[in-house]
Amino acid sequence: MNFAIVKYILGYVMYIEGAAMAFPLITALLYSETAGWSFAFTGALCFALGFLLSRKKAKGAVIYSREAFVTVAISWILLSIMGAVPFVITGTIPNPIDALFESVSGFTTTGASILTDVEILPKCMLFWRSFTHWLGGMGVLVLLLAFLQIKGGSHMNLMKVESPGPSVNKLVPTVRSTAKILYIIYIALTLAEIILLLLGRAPLFDTLTITFGTAGTGGFGIKNDSMAGYSPYIQIVVTIFMILFGINFSAYFLILRKKFKQALSMEEVRCYLAIILVSILIITLVLSDMYPVWEALRHAAFQVGSIITTTGYSSADFGLWPVIPRSILVTLMFIGACAGSTGGGIKVSRLIILLKSVRKELHLMLHPRSVKKLRMDGRVLEPEVIRTTSAFFVAYALFFVISVLLVGVDGHDLVTNFSAVASALNNIGPGLELVGPMGNFSVFSNFSTAVLTIDMLAGRLEIFPLLLLFTRDTWRRR
Amino acid sequence: MNFAIVKYILGYVMYIEGAAMAFPLITALLYSETAGWSFAFTGALCFALGFLLSRKKAKGAVIYSREAFVTVAISWILLSIMGAVPFVITGTIPNPIDALFESVSGFTTTGASILTDVEILPKCMLFWRSFTHWLGGMGVLVLLLAFLQIKGGSHMNLMKVESPGPSVNKLVPTVRSTAKILYIIYIALTLAEIILLLLGRAPLFDTLTITFGTAGTGGFGIKNDSMAGYSPYIQIVVTIFMILFGINFSAYFLILRKKFKQALSMEEVRCYLAIILVSILIITLVLSDMYPVWEALRHAAFQVGSIITTTGYSSADFGLWPVIPRSILVTLMFIGACAGSTGGGIKVSRLIILLKSVRKELHLMLHPRSVKKLRMDGRVLEPEVIRTTSAFFVAYALFFVISVLLVGVDGHDLVTNFSAVASALNNIGPGLELVGPMGNFSVFSNFSTAVLTIDMLAGRLEIFPLLLLFTRDTWRRR
Repeated sequence: MNFAIVKYILGYVMYIEGAAMAFPLITALLYSETAGWSFAFTGALCFALGFLLSRKKAKGAVIYSREAFVTVAISWILLSIMGAVPFVITGTIPNPIDALFESVSGFTTTGASILTDVEILPKCMLFWRSFTHWLGGMGVLVLLLAFLQIKGGSHMNLMKVESPGPSVNKLVPTVRSTAKILYIIYIALTLAEIILLLLGRAPLFDTLTITFGTAGTGGFGIKNDSMAGYSPYIQIVVTIFMILFGINFSAYFLILRKKFKQALSMEEVRCYLAIILVSILIITLVLSDMYPVWEALRHAAFQVGSIITTTGYSSADFGLWPVIPRSILVTLMFIGACAGSTGGGIKVSRLIILLKSVRKELHLMLHPRSVKKLRMDGRVLEPEVIRTTSAFFVAYALFFVISVLLVGVDGHDLVTNFSAVASALNNIGPGLELVGPMGNFSVFSNFSTAVLTIDMLAGRLEIFPLLLLFTRDTWRRR
Repeated sequence: MNFAIVKYILGYVMYIEGAAMAFPLITALLYSETAGWSFAFTGALCFALGFLLSRKKAKGAVIYSREAFVTVAISWILLSIMGAVPFVITGTIPNPIDALFESVSGFTTTGASILTDVEILPKCMLFWRSFTHWLGGMGVLVLLLAFLQIKGGSHMNLMKVESPGPSVNKLVPTVRSTAKILYIIYIALTLAEIILLLLGRAPLFDTLTITFGTAGTGGFGIKNDSMAGYSPYIQIVVTIFMILFGINFSAYFLILRKKFKQALSMEEVRCYLAIILVSILIITLVLSDMYPVWEALRHAAFQVGSIITTTGYSSADFGLWPVIPRSILVTLMFIGACAGSTGGGIKVSRLIILLKSVRKELHLMLHPRSVKKLRMDGRVLEPEVIRTTSAFFVAYALFFVISVLLVGVDGHDLVTNFSAVASALNNIGPGLELVGPMGNFSVFSNFSTAVLTIDMLAGRLEIFPLLLLFTRDTWRRR
């Protein structure tokens, strides 16, 4: 383990977080909120920590996968801890465990909250919560790679670990340009949503927070009823953008390069859109007893878009819907969005890979000597990717079961426990029953809150980086 | 596809089922029950069918894996259909879909019932239900291989497909002797339980049916309260034998060969016993508020043994237990018993293989060029076994999710749907809520009953043989 390079990069991560705190600080100044001091204080703390960590120049600065895993895991933990400080020191969320939950929920773009009433929060706090979604969506390390000239080689390893999905496409030959293109697409889509929401006469503050939550597929609301109180136009815009942010960003890159046909033929994107379409259709049909048909369609599309992209906004209390829509939504929780998007969950491409491996297995049972290779988008899937994907699926299932058992100590019903863990591990936000769209995570004990906090981090980092932190082998000096 | 050999073997399967019907027929004669005619009639039908199918001698009688999959899948379907006939023609269960559910539940050793009151059934029917557990436990095709001289080669393929688990150990060089040894162990353990139950003054009829249900890890009761009404002695004997029948039979073979040390060092068996022990301890602790401690221990041990081995008897209504014991029991449902036993579920050895593959993945992330091989019981795990196990896990999860969605059409609560499918797919019997120990599967519509019937078959045959039935490639003539 090359500790020097890890510390060096973590220092820069702290600089970015310190700079990010300028935004809620400005918000506080605009609204003359005294709570703003907490961001000035924490921002300064971030800079001090950044200076201490990055002071010493890193020797032998190649980032091997070992360093990449550790750097990414620790950077997310550190970001979350510092992000929780303003909540604690202002007394907004006095319990540090709850504050950490809220901060992790923000950065991991989960959007689950332990707050029972968000409307009493100062605007600067609401802004910070939503802004962490935007930062976490594409990732702070990717931001670092895109816009700062940091030393050392093999930065691709950092990007591989931080970006969700079974494999990372380098869009262009250099990591730096790839990271830059991703952020440019991200910022452009964000601006487009802001403009469309402003056209719908949403207040600027609401527009910004809603957009950050949509872009990062986070889902923190600034209203207690999430998005239910907004106009149909705003709900429709948000629906469309949630779905857009769940698409593999490689597709947008191809579109930028005018390779429309190639973009539209991406298996993952087609499959993702097909799942959304079928789910909306079935749910609309079932809901047409409860609502007029257009309203049913609007609510179905909103909730499907929100859950499959793991955003977690709600336009209606789907906890009251019949069992079929609820079962479909729970299933979508696990499927998740596309790889290479800001969404969470298992990811559509992983499921495609897993399904293809099952089909290949059936083929091998009939033709034991066949050597057919699996392909995706015309390219051969490396056995390594298939193996890693299977291992991910197992580790994921294991994490899930153990978490449900641990959360059980609080004595809530099975559906609450099951859906709370599903919601945390897939970075969604709401679950069902006690943690449904109209409930929140304050019902859990400190112990369970900690378990769910770990689940959110495990979900965003796709489990392995977190597991590796607890492997002794990781920490051996080279 | 060599249809001739498939038909030929199916013919012999029918002969065995015809012969098996002699037992309920004798029961009917002893208790002077008129319903006995149905077994004489169905038995004759089986013989006629057997004669028709096996009349033509099979040419080129090698059983390739393709034929093995088809033979095993169809034989289980055929056995179940014929096994349902007595229920329908006597009017015991007039609805053919329900009767088929009950018969599949018997052969697959699930033990889930659509009957609301089993105590009004004629004794010959109760005997048949339990006896199908015993037949299905070790498998009719294995019985065929053990005791009949059938033609052709590569019978190992049949055994591989019918015996649960990721790989089959040939205990001795020939398939026939292996099958014979398995049945001898099975019969010996069955007799031991019968003797111990008779010593506890259980009536002979109860002793036989309880033992068949234990041996096959089935779980059909002849009382509406399952095993709750029997003496603690009987409950303890049943607990011990449930756990014994869930152990990999290779361990007994090693003990027979006086290789005690080797038997006790089998990773799967040790892990299985450790899971049981830990689960019993935790549940006893939680239950010690509800019961005196020894009673808590007895109930905990009974339910843990019953669920992990996928038997499904109950000594208490665990639906009323706190959430931790219920969560543990749901987890045990999925774990299941050892490979090479009569129990169902994912199987302990599969989970060991999957966990080892995750650990290897973590190792590979730190040491990308490592070539360490996975081992189990000192032997190298072939990459093929790991790949098949992963594919099984994915197919299993897929089957599970789709079934829960389909069963959702009945509009029952999520816990009922989830646990009913878990119970069917893992061949357990009871679930939670409406299908809990004191409930039953009559709450489901014909459609959902059919879905759960397919789940039970998929669970017993470990999914792939059933999926292959629906692949066009399977049916191509060579």
